[in-house]
Amino acid sequence: MNITELESIFASEQKRILTEWQTFLKFPSISADPLYNSNCRDCAEWLASHLQGIGFESELLETSTKPVVFAERKGSPDKPTVLFYGHYDVQPIDPENAWETPPFAPTLRNGRLYARGAEDNKGQVFYTLKALETLIQNDGLDAPVKVIIEGEEEYGSAALTEHLDAWADRLKADILMVHDTGTVRAGNPTIVMGLRGIVHLTVELEGPDHDLHSGVHGGLAPNPAQGMGELLSGLFNADGSVAVSGFYDGVRAPTERELTLASETPFDAEAYKHLVGTSPDGGKENTPPAERVGFLPSLDINGVHSGYGGAGMKTIIPSKAITKLSARLVPDQDPAGVLESITGHIYRNVPKGMRLTISDQGVGGPGFRLFPESPLVRKAQAALEDLNAGSVAYLWEGASIPIVTGLAATSGAEPLLVGFGHEEDRIHAPNESFSIEQFKSGYLYAALMLQSL
Amino acid sequence: MNITELESIFASEQKRILTEWQTFLKFPSISADPLYNSNCRDCAEWLASHLQGIGFESELLETSTKPVVFAERKGSPDKPTVLFYGHYDVQPIDPENAWETPPFAPTLRNGRLYARGAEDNKGQVFYTLKALETLIQNDGLDAPVKVIIEGEEEYGSAALTEHLDAWADRLKADILMVHDTGTVRAGNPTIVMGLRGIVHLTVELEGPDHDLHSGVHGGLAPNPAQGMGELLSGLFNADGSVAVSGFYDGVRAPTERELTLASETPFDAEAYKHLVGTSPDGGKENTPPAERVGFLPSLDINGVHSGYGGAGMKTIIPSKAITKLSARLVPDQDPAGVLESITGHIYRNVPKGMRLTISDQGVGGPGFRLFPESPLVRKAQAALEDLNAGSVAYLWEGASIPIVTGLAATSGAEPLLVGFGHEEDRIHAPNESFSIEQFKSGYLYAALMLQSL
Repeated sequence: MNITELESIFASEQKRILTEWQTFLKFPSISADPLYNSNCRDCAEWLASHLQGIGFESELLETSTKPVVFAERKGSPDKPTVLFYGHYDVQPIDPENAWETPPFAPTLRNGRLYARGAEDNKGQVFYTLKALETLIQNDGLDAPVKVIIEGEEEYGSAALTEHLDAWADRLKADILMVHDTGTVRAGNPTIVMGLRGIVHLTVELEGPDHDLHSGVHGGLAPNPAQGMGELLSGLFNADGSVAVSGFYDGVRAPTERELTLASETPFDAEAYKHLVGTSPDGGKENTPPAERVGFLPSLDINGVHSGYGGAGMKTIIPSKAITKLSARLVPDQDPAGVLESITGHIYRNVPKGMRLTISDQGVGGPGFRLFPESPLVRKAQAALEDLNAGSVAYLWEGASIPIVTGLAATSGAEPLLVGFGHEEDRIHAPNESFSIEQFKSGYLYAALMLQSL
Repeated sequence: MNITELESIFASEQKRILTEWQTFLKFPSISADPLYNSNCRDCAEWLASHLQGIGFESELLETSTKPVVFAERKGSPDKPTVLFYGHYDVQPIDPENAWETPPFAPTLRNGRLYARGAEDNKGQVFYTLKALETLIQNDGLDAPVKVIIEGEEEYGSAALTEHLDAWADRLKADILMVHDTGTVRAGNPTIVMGLRGIVHLTVELEGPDHDLHSGVHGGLAPNPAQGMGELLSGLFNADGSVAVSGFYDGVRAPTERELTLASETPFDAEAYKHLVGTSPDGGKENTPPAERVGFLPSLDINGVHSGYGGAGMKTIIPSKAITKLSARLVPDQDPAGVLESITGHIYRNVPKGMRLTISDQGVGGPGFRLFPESPLVRKAQAALEDLNAGSVAYLWEGASIPIVTGLAATSGAEPLLVGFGHEEDRIHAPNESFSIEQFKSGYLYAALMLQSL
């Protein structure tokens, strides 16, 4: 089928597709909070049944936490086997009162569907399933296809990672398709050439064993909120770089070719400011933005909480302070080593009179980069050019999909990361959305790419 | 009546007194949150009616916020007029889940009554009312007594402060009795010789206009949690002193006599550690603890909140960070000037790419100190020695009761601050309590002191 035929099929099926997508989005499949475990299972069961309905053999692979959806459709032995990976879990929804419509009541406004997971990753998973459905119904799918959709990507993919070895045979494939990324500009198809790795940890400082009256104790008791301020401030140098000794060990410098391809999409500081509400002034000073996010690691404070934050004032010295930290890593950094550098730095700087606890330490995986001259990258480029007259962009992305590294190694497949997300989708934030236009682009690309194999 | 007679009256009335005290404590009269406004009014009405019942003319003085309870009982014109000041409002209760029994369901355990306000200030107000009741019933009260009990002490006493001039005639008195302080050790009667003043403010830093994905934006977007860490850390010097220029302007040094009296109660670091759970390592290094809390100002972070703090991890760059700050001041510091120094310092250090807002700025009042040789101080000492064979302690307290300064000036009365609170009462924290023993000491002192005038 050519692109015109695919567009016409999408137009005639759009209403049904939207309804099904909304059903998928209604499951509050938040992986970070065990309260939602049964909703995650309901979502996985619905997905498995949906895959069965469109022509796959599907099953739930049980783990000690969330079930993994696995489906397979045999194909021609002459064709490469595709392994499509996605996730059905979503980020938490707080701050809940910042949502204009409830996060699990998908609502269409101005051509965009608003819901937690609308883009990340349920939207991008679902256009892929719909492309597969269309190809199957029209005898357009020759390649064998495996689908694996997990329920813990937003929480570190631990269960799937643990089972990779046990499931290695089942996962064997030639191409690892992942649709969990974005485009450099709205409507400009983009191949992601690299992802950063991630590690994370939680730091807790305890001082007094209960909140103290700040009059009786001010100047006397050590204040964990003050101590945490010192600790956090000490993680960074005055130039914005990370002050942790060993943090930059092994960082792989970009090649000339990578820098050339990356520079084909100039960083637009004005557009950034418009989308994000502030200038790209984070990270290391005097370093180009694309390099800071694509080729350098970052250390990010995800949250810090201590003492009173309500209305009016409450004059206490808080008994403790907690901080959540994560770091994004580039290739050749050793994630476990980086985590050790960070915890070592923090342990060496415990403020006087306080007890330190580090918990929730986790290694999501290392960073990786693709080879720009790969035939698979060329084939994706052709499909994307077919979709859109404009040129294709090559992006070294700052985000992480840690499980991709593991799946590529286990399956033996070459990863191919294409996605249609965009900044205005506000993934991980309140009022996440994905436009029908983006969804359709994904559908067309997925169908063209799968057909071309 | 001598102390033995008073003790016997207390013993025979104890059950009734406890029941009435519990009724007083059941009102959730939290002043900081307007949600509780009607509960504050209910509490004030109950108090006015209770005062009427024990022999006072009482009324509610209306303000634009919480009503003030005022009551008066005429006495002999030869006697000095007493103005007793207290407050019926209480601190907020969070973290609510840290309470072993609900904060507004007063519960007796091991001789202590647990409830928000059990000590601060409902407990200390109520033993005073019960002492007045006993004296009136036994013809033991000659001095004219006025009672003023406000509903906003924990929120800055703004309404009462605003009305001081208008109510000046009504408030005219010779002695301002305040029972809102503690003892240096359990069972060691204490006269408070000074209080610190207080100012407060809320600081908010905004970076991105929504929470951002830390992968897509780590190294790119300015992080308000990181910026707040820098700001807070920059408020202090490495030796723990406050780095804000002008903060220490005007600080009055203690006299030799004050240092001598203060040193009669040696600071017990081991006892402190036992009560508070950590050593007295806050504030300025190499400065005696009693001096840090009694004769030096402090700058205290009451809370800091930014981004994610829930279970698991949420890898975001938060869009904003908020901090609540207060400072305790000593005599001769100008509160408005100190507040200006702090806000000036913060405005000069706004981190790159962030917008700063300072709100909720307030001046609670200056610090003050009493004259150690005052005849009133001597009389209180005699009553306390009668109560307890042990010596009386003189305490330069770190806490603030800003309204006391204003009431003293308006009424023309000499302040006298005695109270029976103790660290283990955990005022302002979860599981606040006050023992029957402490309550009884307060009752006996109040009766002896009022009789002696």
